[in-house]
Amino acid sequence: MPTEKCFAKGSSAPGPVPKDRLRLYSMRFCPFAQRTRLVLNSKGIKYDTINIHLKEKPDWFLEKNPLGLVPALETPAGEIIYESPITCEYLDEAYPEKKLLPSSPFGKAQQRMMLEHFSKTIPYFYKIPAARRNGEDVSGQEAELKEKFAKLNEHLEKKKTKFFEGDTVTMIDYMMWPFFERIEVLELKHCLDHTPELKKWAELMLEDPAVKNTMFSGETYKAFYQSVAEGKPDYDLEL
Amino acid sequence: MPTEKCFAKGSSAPGPVPKDRLRLYSMRFCPFAQRTRLVLNSKGIKYDTINIHLKEKPDWFLEKNPLGLVPALETPAGEIIYESPITCEYLDEAYPEKKLLPSSPFGKAQQRMMLEHFSKTIPYFYKIPAARRNGEDVSGQEAELKEKFAKLNEHLEKKKTKFFEGDTVTMIDYMMWPFFERIEVLELKHCLDHTPELKKWAELMLEDPAVKNTMFSGETYKAFYQSVAEGKPDYDLEL
Repeated sequence: MPTEKCFAKGSSAPGPVPKDRLRLYSMRFCPFAQRTRLVLNSKGIKYDTINIHLKEKPDWFLEKNPLGLVPALETPAGEIIYESPITCEYLDEAYPEKKLLPSSPFGKAQQRMMLEHFSKTIPYFYKIPAARRNGEDVSGQEAELKEKFAKLNEHLEKKKTKFFEGDTVTMIDYMMWPFFERIEVLELKHCLDHTPELKKWAELMLEDPAVKNTMFSGETYKAFYQSVAEGKPDYDLEL
Repeated sequence: MPTEKCFAKGSSAPGPVPKDRLRLYSMRFCPFAQRTRLVLNSKGIKYDTINIHLKEKPDWFLEKNPLGLVPALETPAGEIIYESPITCEYLDEAYPEKKLLPSSPFGKAQQRMMLEHFSKTIPYFYKIPAARRNGEDVSGQEAELKEKFAKLNEHLEKKKTKFFEGDTVTMIDYMMWPFFERIEVLELKHCLDHTPELKKWAELMLEDPAVKNTMFSGETYKAFYQSVAEGKPDYDLEL
């Protein structure tokens, strides 16, 4: 049974992945790794977690996964899969019960195009708080983020569905969610003030069982981000 | 029958996409659009081409495709698909005869991971020639590009196959090819000097029928890139 505490340089490698499950290499507070955790949880896939100390990565981890990225999946056959969207599509294809992506080629293409757009929104979740810490004026960047949120709001308004691609949660909702889960601790919540549909979506997402199973409280994020700001990320916070 | 000459601002919109084919919005010399042309050709899909003047895009094009990106596909149902890897995966799924991606989830994930790596190589094909034009020393950047080529060479050496994922051309070969087709005009061919397997791959790719159907000669590229360097890209060169 792997511990949740992170494995750092000098640690001994965990044993091989048991036959009946997958292994996830993760960092507990990483939003990209949370995407994979959401999909694993939502689909009810059995998996172990090995958390990695991202500042002092173990040699055995870099041997398996030379770029040292998390999230990464390892199968019992020793196959390694990394990059969060690739891990999530892999899971949806390898475990076809409860599909999160549509079956039609155009439906899949639509979700991939939305993800491409959203990937251009993600940097704002990092650069606005960093600029604010440096005492810079962030009003311009916030205006840009609000514009991106307005586009997402418009999409929901037009579709008239609860979630981005229908009335149930699909892959694209899980790809976007981790950033909205952190919106309060990043002090960006006011950017949702004029996007009521998007705000409603975020509230509905909080009721999703996979979201409930993978999320942390605002207090925990606050303490973690504080440790990051101090240059000493506390990957094992509260363990 | 659409003309190959590009449609610019002020042009009238082409009619609807005929029922039995796809439409590709393209620019004749764009390496990203060539990816989609390679896949369309290799799979024998019937399509029309509408070339777009990328510096003066028609309003009707921006209405259909608000980001104005090429390549973009339009189906007879009016569905629009953009971003080259997304268009190519769409084609492979929507036209399942002669599959270019493997059927296994891990095989697909491997191709997607390779594409992610290669995406980090693409900027070198642009920034080295630009730096050289500015009279800058490009030896450091060339060394980095050579290192990336060495990784690709190592992959081919280990696999002992003619192409990246076997002895026939698959999706990943087509995703990388357009940049190697331009390697001579970009004056980067010497970067292949110490990567014999990669060089052999490039020579073999030249024999692929889809490559033959979509490529331009070195002379044509030279003239096109010259027009780009002068700030007046000649999209209709030789027409």
